[in-house]
Amino acid sequence: MAGSSFGSIFRITSFGESHGAAVGVVIDGCPPGIEIKIEEIQAELDRRRTGQSDLTTPRKEKDTIHILSGYFEGKTTGTPIALVAYNEDVKSEDYNHMKQSYRPSHADYTYDAKYGFRDWRGSGRASARETLARVAAGAIAQKYLKQQGIEIVSFVQSVGEISTHIPLDTVNRTDVEANDVRCPDSARAEQMATLIRKVRDDKDSVGGVVQTVVRGMPAGLGDPVFDKLDADLAKAMLSINATKGFEIGSGFAGTQQRGSQHNDELTSDNGVVSTKTNNAGGVVGGISNGENLVFRTAFKPVSTIGKTQQTITTDGKPTELSAEGRHDPCVLPRAVPIVDAMTAITLMDHILRNKSIQK
Amino acid sequence: MAGSSFGSIFRITSFGESHGAAVGVVIDGCPPGIEIKIEEIQAELDRRRTGQSDLTTPRKEKDTIHILSGYFEGKTTGTPIALVAYNEDVKSEDYNHMKQSYRPSHADYTYDAKYGFRDWRGSGRASARETLARVAAGAIAQKYLKQQGIEIVSFVQSVGEISTHIPLDTVNRTDVEANDVRCPDSARAEQMATLIRKVRDDKDSVGGVVQTVVRGMPAGLGDPVFDKLDADLAKAMLSINATKGFEIGSGFAGTQQRGSQHNDELTSDNGVVSTKTNNAGGVVGGISNGENLVFRTAFKPVSTIGKTQQTITTDGKPTELSAEGRHDPCVLPRAVPIVDAMTAITLMDHILRNKSIQK
Amino acid sequence: MAGSSFGSIFRITSFGESHGAAVGVVIDGCPPGIEIKIEEIQAELDRRRTGQSDLTTPRKEKDTIHILSGYFEGKTTGTPIALVAYNEDVKSEDYNHMKQSYRPSHADYTYDAKYGFRDWRGSGRASARETLARVAAGAIAQKYLKQQGIEIVSFVQSVGEISTHIPLDTVNRTDVEANDVRCPDSARAEQMATLIRKVRDDKDSVGGVVQTVVRGMPAGLGDPVFDKLDADLAKAMLSINATKGFEIGSGFAGTQQRGSQHNDELTSDNGVVSTKTNNAGGVVGGISNGENLVFRTAFKPVSTIGKTQQTITTDGKPTELSAEGRHDPCVLPRAVPIVDAMTAITLMDHILRNKSIQK
Amino acid sequence: MAGSSFGSIFRITSFGESHGAAVGVVIDGCPPGIEIKIEEIQAELDRRRTGQSDLTTPRKEKDTIHILSGYFEGKTTGTPIALVAYNEDVKSEDYNHMKQSYRPSHADYTYDAKYGFRDWRGSGRASARETLARVAAGAIAQKYLKQQGIEIVSFVQSVGEISTHIPLDTVNRTDVEANDVRCPDSARAEQMATLIRKVRDDKDSVGGVVQTVVRGMPAGLGDPVFDKLDADLAKAMLSINATKGFEIGSGFAGTQQRGSQHNDELTSDNGVVSTKTNNAGGVVGGISNGENLVFRTAFKPVSTIGKTQQTITTDGKPTELSAEGRHDPCVLPRAVPIVDAMTAITLMDHILRNKSIQK
Repeated sequence: MAGSSFGSIFRITSFGESHGAAVGVVIDGCPPGIEIKIEEIQAELDRRRTGQSDLTTPRKEKDTIHILSGYFEGKTTGTPIALVAYNEDVKSEDYNHMKQSYRPSHADYTYDAKYGFRDWRGSGRASARETLARVAAGAIAQKYLKQQGIEIVSFVQSVGEISTHIPLDTVNRTDVEANDVRCPDSARAEQMATLIRKVRDDKDSVGGVVQTVVRGMPAGLGDPVFDKLDADLAKAMLSINATKGFEIGSGFAGTQQRGSQHNDELTSDNGVVSTKTNNAGGVVGGISNGENLVFRTAFKPVSTIGKTQQTITTDGKPTELSAEGRHDPCVLPRAVPIVDAMTAITLMDHILRNKSIQK
Repeated sequence: MAGSSFGSIFRITSFGESHGAAVGVVIDGCPPGIEIKIEEIQAELDRRRTGQSDLTTPRKEKDTIHILSGYFEGKTTGTPIALVAYNEDVKSEDYNHMKQSYRPSHADYTYDAKYGFRDWRGSGRASARETLARVAAGAIAQKYLKQQGIEIVSFVQSVGEISTHIPLDTVNRTDVEANDVRCPDSARAEQMATLIRKVRDDKDSVGGVVQTVVRGMPAGLGDPVFDKLDADLAKAMLSINATKGFEIGSGFAGTQQRGSQHNDELTSDNGVVSTKTNNAGGVVGGISNGENLVFRTAFKPVSTIGKTQQTITTDGKPTELSAEGRHDPCVLPRAVPIVDAMTAITLMDHILRNKSIQK
Repeated sequence: MAGSSFGSIFRITSFGESHGAAVGVVIDGCPPGIEIKIEEIQAELDRRRTGQSDLTTPRKEKDTIHILSGYFEGKTTGTPIALVAYNEDVKSEDYNHMKQSYRPSHADYTYDAKYGFRDWRGSGRASARETLARVAAGAIAQKYLKQQGIEIVSFVQSVGEISTHIPLDTVNRTDVEANDVRCPDSARAEQMATLIRKVRDDKDSVGGVVQTVVRGMPAGLGDPVFDKLDADLAKAMLSINATKGFEIGSGFAGTQQRGSQHNDELTSDNGVVSTKTNNAGGVVGGISNGENLVFRTAFKPVSTIGKTQQTITTDGKPTELSAEGRHDPCVLPRAVPIVDAMTAITLMDHILRNKSIQK
Repeated sequence: MAGSSFGSIFRITSFGESHGAAVGVVIDGCPPGIEIKIEEIQAELDRRRTGQSDLTTPRKEKDTIHILSGYFEGKTTGTPIALVAYNEDVKSEDYNHMKQSYRPSHADYTYDAKYGFRDWRGSGRASARETLARVAAGAIAQKYLKQQGIEIVSFVQSVGEISTHIPLDTVNRTDVEANDVRCPDSARAEQMATLIRKVRDDKDSVGGVVQTVVRGMPAGLGDPVFDKLDADLAKAMLSINATKGFEIGSGFAGTQQRGSQHNDELTSDNGVVSTKTNNAGGVVGGISNGENLVFRTAFKPVSTIGKTQQTITTDGKPTELSAEGRHDPCVLPRAVPIVDAMTAITLMDHILRNKSIQK
């Protein structure tokens, strides 16, 4: 009800502020007996970590994950799993300007409008540091999905004006992880990296798009009406910091097509139903049809920039701001594991939901 | 959990199939004392109704709404409000082909994959007829919001390639309702109408985009992390039949901007905080900032078309389909009140949620 | 959130006032393919109906049930099932005194305190008429449980001072339904009937206890910590009008025992684990152990009595009240099917919940 | 959905096993601005702690509480509050017999039946150690209620056959805390202490009843139908380890009364409505009427006893068990703060829920 939980059966509750004691997550409803090593969770967090390349903020956060509960002899037990990363390298004094001013396009003002005051240290609860809770929970969901033959591949499809259109049937995690941008098209990745370094040097920032493809999808996931699979994915993606859009399959471009072009004709091969095209992006009537899930998530340029901006103090006086030091010029490379995580959490939840209607 | 409910405090539960006895909705959590006439609910349903112009399906459904509970002496009572429209003009025999074949890009196959069988009459639960439940509930939410000075205006921004860019500060419902397309730019509306008639005559269909602007927004709506206001709106919109995308503020286009362009600088005028631009679309960090809410929802072309298509029977044999008669060549004109309704339901829920943190 | 829904997967939402248009229920999350006839639902409602014997109110309500959705060719479809009974024999003028006065131990005052006003006709939403929604939904749950070999038998264990202690292993529905009291001990039933007629003639009322036994229970139902099976049953029972207490197994009496008496020792017979005694009442640590579920629910004497009582008007003036005519002198006989229904709904929900942790 | 959360707006999620790394709780939905010191939370935990007197287990657990999030400059921030106590004094080898045998009336067998295996160390998730999560969350709720003039007093009303009937209007926490039993009737307390020491020396255990009175109650709390205030309290109490019954107001005894005795007549004094008696226990139609809330919770004798008992091993072989050393002969003294906590959490949740229907 206060927005810190997601999912209905595989239900995660996130907690923690950027410069408080810790950021963590409690997963309730994870089935017992999933074998997972803490290193597997840590590996996903390391993909999200700051300071992993010169394209990200140079802040060094180790984000070491601890399992506090729900785990015994290498397996989940069916009881709530609490995962925590204690905050380190916290220099709240760096953020003293946050206390007195509202940073443009940051949540400083909106938190004050909602709650009357805020934990201003390092953006508090609005910090993207919260997303490590999702990535930790998502690592368990990804392990579960992998065991069911479901594979999630998210990657940076565009940074600013530069975009790639690589084939979705073959793109894989190895190629995604092959460079710091997390764009599996190495030529484009290099251009993107150059652009990111340029905006960084300009004390500016740039946005982009993450594309996701999920292969090995079962048909039948998603509930009609409100909890359509694509509706839940849209919510999952829009709940990530800095996102401004979501589209599945043909998306906005598809609105310009005719039905006769857009419809995905069905075929059957030895009882296996498939479609000749995939304008639907793998979801029809809110329910997966077994085709690849294909969707895109838009990330705006990072709000924190070194350039000088006009804004106001918390008591309404005009002031100027220019961020010092340690911020990401582009969130896209670090957004990829977050999108993977939210996708996995959404899918695992719907797989578990579906069990209740099965014989 | 089975996806027929939406909202947390103002919580609606939809029920009903296209050719069953009735379609309806139960609203639990509506505050007592809201004065509303049944005619006000009916008026919203009439905007959604079939057969309202030559741009929509010629099917005639009166959609007369009945209040079964939660209403006394012209006011809501605080107890659950059940609203029902009994189905009429039901010709299930028209849909006999639905029984044996899977229509391309319809939910026939996915329902079978999920449930093992389906109520195939008139698309059953997957029919857009379900949306009348939302519009009925949304009429009450709209009444509530109006009393708080909040005004929702959705309109058809594009049909196929034709789009309008009218000013969002002044667009109003009267202009939207001035023509059958529900595009307040009358010149574009005429072009759109011409296009819709053309695709209709081609036995084809076309998609488009609905844009929504909400004025009079309070700051502070939306919960951080998962139930961000824009995340909940994204889910609300993607839960509507035939939608494929959602973007708020600068959306996908904004991903190509630099932070210095995209950031909305803050100003203050006698204690009233506002932003000079509105690339955020009225939501920062998941919480409304008091600026206009601005978002766009993509609708694919209608799946049911008169043109002949290849598909398969329910037992996997190839077959051909060409829909007879009564379908919409373009859902956009009738989608506008549905988007208004889901917007209103989402906002009212967040207003009520916010009360719990207020002194 | 406003309290009209119960259950998490098999989730029912009740609506309707005593003298409004209808009372009904929407069930979301019912699995597809359950075969049930409308007559089977009606049969349960007939057990709850007014006017069924001289021990109940002589009001005649037929309570004819209608299925509005979620049902096709004799089976549930997996989509929401709406069940409605339209109100008849409504004489609101009989209840005009309710408008101006607060009846002692009725919800008149508390509804006004909560909502500011109330639908006073026939007790409105606080009327026991609401329980028909539960009985209708419970009929489907009971059908489902029966198919799994689970049998629920509730019966009147006491009326006022008169109580029975028949063996719980053999008590069955036929014996329960053999008399108007629904006490399977025919000697005691006669005494109870005599007492009920006496308090009726005294223009008074009397309370009692319903005992429930569930046989064929699987082990493993119920979730640790908050959603313990007995916690959910306690809530289910205390949510029924006029209940004041719940105890499972040894209950309050067991608090006087020593652990060495109270503990249920375990045995095993060819891999089937059981306990030698059942002080637990079938639930240990919130989870069923496969033994019979045994619990008791306390019902206070009916508040509406013919005797003259002191009370106040809605504007605080002292006044006298004496109910005319048509009320139950004792709710126990009609409470039995309601307890059966709430038991069934709770168990079915936990069976469906359990599926998510199964391989 | 997996049962580790409680409450709808003030929503707590508990995690942790007895001998895992930690036990904790995340509170989502706590309003911002509640001033509370960590010492106030610790004080409640100290009331629940082991080793506090010779009537409880001699195990020494310090239960030091840590606030990980949602707290800034002495106040709650409105974001999730994570509270954690790390486990110490953990001697899992003491519990090796738990690994191979099912203890009578313990959750060993039911966990295995549900999950297929269990964390057997120190009873794992089924340990009463979990209740410290509730007490920690309840401390914040109690602080909030106190500021609204609501006072909760729970106390030990009976141990075995010994019970007290002190006046509920004046009983207070100071008197409750005046002795180790937490029975405010000092003469009875001494008898109870003697009984507890006797059963301890007999290597046995004994049950009892906790009574709760809440003064300063506002009218209007609780939602009609399923989330009645007394239904939610019943669930709250039955969710506590070792409870077997709940009754409110006249409870089971009241079932033997006549309506004319049982009904609480209303009076009004300068606009303040009250009742002459309180057989209702402060709740009518599921909604508080402003009178004192009065209810009782039954606790069975502790299952772990030193006496030898027959049981089976996990592979079904007969075996004998006799617990060594460190267990409570009677949970009642330590149960009091847990009942206080669950009462406070339930009431605070309903106060926040009520805000959504207020103007």
